[in-house]
Amino acid sequence: MRIPFTKMHGLGNSYIFLNLFDFNIEEEYLSQLAIDVANKDTGIGSDGLILIHPSNQADAGMRIFNKDGSEGKNCGNGIRCVAKYVYENNIVEHNTFSIETKAGIVTAQVGGDRNQVDEVTVDMGKPILNRHLIPMEGDDAVQVVSEPFLVSHHPLDLTAVSMGNPHAIFFVEDIENAPLMELGPSITVDTRFPEGVNVEFVEIISDKEINFRVWERGSGITQACGTGACAAVVASILNGYSTEGQEVCVHLSGGDLFIKWAEDGRVWMRGNAETTVVGEYIWSSNG
Amino acid sequence: MRIPFTKMHGLGNSYIFLNLFDFNIEEEYLSQLAIDVANKDTGIGSDGLILIHPSNQADAGMRIFNKDGSEGKNCGNGIRCVAKYVYENNIVEHNTFSIETKAGIVTAQVGGDRNQVDEVTVDMGKPILNRHLIPMEGDDAVQVVSEPFLVSHHPLDLTAVSMGNPHAIFFVEDIENAPLMELGPSITVDTRFPEGVNVEFVEIISDKEINFRVWERGSGITQACGTGACAAVVASILNGYSTEGQEVCVHLSGGDLFIKWAEDGRVWMRGNAETTVVGEYIWSSNG
Repeated sequence: MRIPFTKMHGLGNSYIFLNLFDFNIEEEYLSQLAIDVANKDTGIGSDGLILIHPSNQADAGMRIFNKDGSEGKNCGNGIRCVAKYVYENNIVEHNTFSIETKAGIVTAQVGGDRNQVDEVTVDMGKPILNRHLIPMEGDDAVQVVSEPFLVSHHPLDLTAVSMGNPHAIFFVEDIENAPLMELGPSITVDTRFPEGVNVEFVEIISDKEINFRVWERGSGITQACGTGACAAVVASILNGYSTEGQEVCVHLSGGDLFIKWAEDGRVWMRGNAETTVVGEYIWSSNG
Repeated sequence: MRIPFTKMHGLGNSYIFLNLFDFNIEEEYLSQLAIDVANKDTGIGSDGLILIHPSNQADAGMRIFNKDGSEGKNCGNGIRCVAKYVYENNIVEHNTFSIETKAGIVTAQVGGDRNQVDEVTVDMGKPILNRHLIPMEGDDAVQVVSEPFLVSHHPLDLTAVSMGNPHAIFFVEDIENAPLMELGPSITVDTRFPEGVNVEFVEIISDKEINFRVWERGSGITQACGTGACAAVVASILNGYSTEGQEVCVHLSGGDLFIKWAEDGRVWMRGNAETTVVGEYIWSSNG
């Protein structure tokens, strides 16, 4: 079976994109297909599979499958790629449009032209600061901002934010010496977070610029985490290091994202996406 | 720059193939291109890059670049893919043909038809058994067959064979318990092998069938090593476990190879190759 695909990445977070405006794949094959395309040796090589499909509720829809075959809800790096794809392929009419995801409908805006979208801004929604909704154990009346948090005899100050998924943010003096390898594995499964947590260390450079490193729940150290970058900027503002309405440049291992927590309470993420391959995948598993 | 490519693999050892019968790429870009295409996130994802090019000395030529950008000499899994490619793409006239490599001219034979080559047999040349040519330290008058070899207080029996690259073969009772992780890293850099060595553990099932695990020099544990499988069968025959002219099925982690040390002294490798992607790589580095 030959399957037309495009491969794209946002800050090194790569996906195989299938355009289901052109053809369809039966539901029962999707999970195995995601596993197979993600394999660097016997498939293509990616962090997962994203389907771009017609939607009744938005200008286009997307579904994301992780490389283990499970379906995800949303991905900040993936959705920038989707926005670039649907605009460059004339699937959407205007440069501001809506995308349906399993986590809700997202507004996206692209810069550049139909030949080459060179930046994408995405509405990442409102952060969730209520402790029990993050979710985290403890007194729901108190926001989790610079709260003492002891891990393996290390006294840390925790700020916790959900962007649809939970994030634990710790501010450090020097990002290069942040204990990501040392503490990431234990914090991510800490029982005080009943659904686990993404672990982020953040170094404040100024009110407009931060350094960022992440241990992603279920994945370990990754080059970039879009929701994590949003959570880090929200946490910076909650701690008085920056202010609402101020766009902050977040330096991730894979590149830069520009995050703004707007006065209306919504978080906007601006960044790039790259197309690396256009081709056909020859799938032998389900022939 | 858009570069047409085919991705193929032999037993999970994957390469990006460029057909230089159709177009050319300047020499100065090749090393960086190999590094870039091999990257699973920002490129395509592979173990390296193989160029298929016109040859004055053979029906086709190939050059192989590893994922670190260095140029290699030959690769048993890669050359099966090349043979499949040149036959399916009508670059060669007959189903037996010659391929120029940096290690010499190789004869290949394909089974199947122009639409679907389903097996490839390759002449892997004559094994080198002379100690100083393997190369290994010690008395050149004595072949390295079941020779006592002490590593980290483990007394082993070593058989050493070169197939253009050096191999240290150790026979074990049970492949699942072979000390590959434990001893591979130290044997591969053992100073008795001045150029290092590939490390293979082999379990004899019968005179027609063996189990095989490899620690590749410079790479660590890999799914498959074509020259290693050849060396293992030669070593089996040198130790009396099998006989010349007998095809032996080698079970590697990535699949099976069929190896025959023929009466004329040459080693033939038979196995499969798979095409997984046909497409265009959008290369921005040297755009």
